[in-house]
Amino acid sequence: MKVVLLGSLASRERHRLEAKLQTKFTIVSLQDAEPRDVVARELADADAMITLHYDRTFPPAPRLKLLQAAGAGVDRIELAALPKGAVLANAFGHEEAVAEYCVLGMLAWSHDFLEAEQSFRTGSWRMSGRFGAPIHDEIMGKTLGIVGLGRIGLATASRAKALGMTVLACARSIPSPAPASVDAFMPWREIDDFLTLCDYVVIACALTPETAGLMNTARFARMKRTAVIVNVARGEVVDEDALFDALQRKVIAGGIIDAWYRYPSEDDLNLPPSKHPFHELKNVIMTPHSSAWTHGMLDRRWTQIAENLDRLQRGEALINVVAQA
Amino acid sequence: MKVVLLGSLASRERHRLEAKLQTKFTIVSLQDAEPRDVVARELADADAMITLHYDRTFPPAPRLKLLQAAGAGVDRIELAALPKGAVLANAFGHEEAVAEYCVLGMLAWSHDFLEAEQSFRTGSWRMSGRFGAPIHDEIMGKTLGIVGLGRIGLATASRAKALGMTVLACARSIPSPAPASVDAFMPWREIDDFLTLCDYVVIACALTPETAGLMNTARFARMKRTAVIVNVARGEVVDEDALFDALQRKVIAGGIIDAWYRYPSEDDLNLPPSKHPFHELKNVIMTPHSSAWTHGMLDRRWTQIAENLDRLQRGEALINVVAQA
Repeated sequence: MKVVLLGSLASRERHRLEAKLQTKFTIVSLQDAEPRDVVARELADADAMITLHYDRTFPPAPRLKLLQAAGAGVDRIELAALPKGAVLANAFGHEEAVAEYCVLGMLAWSHDFLEAEQSFRTGSWRMSGRFGAPIHDEIMGKTLGIVGLGRIGLATASRAKALGMTVLACARSIPSPAPASVDAFMPWREIDDFLTLCDYVVIACALTPETAGLMNTARFARMKRTAVIVNVARGEVVDEDALFDALQRKVIAGGIIDAWYRYPSEDDLNLPPSKHPFHELKNVIMTPHSSAWTHGMLDRRWTQIAENLDRLQRGEALINVVAQA
Repeated sequence: MKVVLLGSLASRERHRLEAKLQTKFTIVSLQDAEPRDVVARELADADAMITLHYDRTFPPAPRLKLLQAAGAGVDRIELAALPKGAVLANAFGHEEAVAEYCVLGMLAWSHDFLEAEQSFRTGSWRMSGRFGAPIHDEIMGKTLGIVGLGRIGLATASRAKALGMTVLACARSIPSPAPASVDAFMPWREIDDFLTLCDYVVIACALTPETAGLMNTARFARMKRTAVIVNVARGEVVDEDALFDALQRKVIAGGIIDAWYRYPSEDDLNLPPSKHPFHELKNVIMTPHSSAWTHGMLDRRWTQIAENLDRLQRGEALINVVAQA
């Protein structure tokens, strides 16, 4: 069988796939900028494709049986364009890394960590408790609200609970069995009440038509003025204008943002992540979509991808199936 | 009864003591710079004193029954100077805050958090996984070694365990019952072997003649070259020259340092924390002894201090007793 790795991310990880595959595949790596005729030739007889992006402009792939997304999010894959007979699958393994990031972000915020480190490094003891610094917070005893109780939500819940937080979740459905790390569930329709209860709100739902713009001006107004939003999902779940406005006017206390509104091309690594100057706000902790970028994530993810290819080769049921054309 | 609050830290928190005391006390606050005759007059008939520092140069306190340290560490209190008939007690409540700091520091280190935040804030996506950033680590799956299994050690162990770390402890004695969050105990005499096993080493023991200089050049050489030391105890437990040398020469990968070698007076908040320029090292995360400085810590600590005063007034057994003269 033949598998095509598409795009820089997928092809950079080729060695992981090779190391993990147990069955024989011809592996072809194609960069994003590959000439169209090369892509067309390679897709013409591909059995499987690994990519982060797919749409109707791609050349035909009539033999394709598996379109394997190289990540959890499939919002950049056009479902209607899926070749007939092909299965769309995604891959996980990011949830532990992202959950660590959520805990890290909440801890860093509550302990004034960035300011303590930077001011001390530049020579001042002013953030020291011994010399009358502002007293900072702990996350123990605080209430975390998780929006969307998928893998990231569950991995974050167990960690937060162990650190002494009260954990609420607002989700379409309650997992069964209900996880012990979640103190209370609220259905999707009660999100406005849910938001009033939280000291931290972690956005961990998929981007869908239902969740696009979920956090808007009215919903920020429901949150505590001392509350902090953490977005590790997709930028578009949180309305861009409403987020900037809520942070700038201190409608909420702060934001820990890893999911953005604009992503650059490889050629322009200085493209601002938003039309608004988030970097000018002191109450924002901002990272470049790096929360999941760990050795552990890549190892777990490519283990799953290789397993799916092996299953395809062996005629076994595929895992992580999202859709079937 | 009369209680004297001594020094800036103790007297700043007077309102907490007043709010928590259930029995009647005359409360006198004295600053560090108070004239000696004022201190002498107030100590002459004090039943209790709350302070961070005490030695033989203090005026006599013949009626003193309780010398209450306003923290856990009593290394700045001269035991031999304790007035006859007085009990020395300390106070806790810092352990949850410091444990959060240890987890925060390990997470920040492993996720390259400071560099990701700072580079992105100044406009670059270079730390993004989408654009070929160096892959960072997780703490899940890593081995944490805790030196000294007191309150901080135990509070750190339970959090680290819940985050998926393997937890080892090296301590004088194993708590009974053995805590489930510690995977393996090693006695003090095996510290050299213990150090070879750890990805992170948290120093959480008291400063005593036995622990002063515990971490020296030979012991740093035992650690993994990829390992990170976290010091939330006292600077002097880790030899100052050996620490700087190990970090500068990359004998170990990094340091997360909250406990230092020099502390300034209130008048000079720019005194460097060491004779060495730790702030020039990129592999150091440095904070100004701020790990415990939380609302939660102060609330828990002054609850204990007030309880001890109430117990003294009522003639009940004191808590947190360290020594008796």
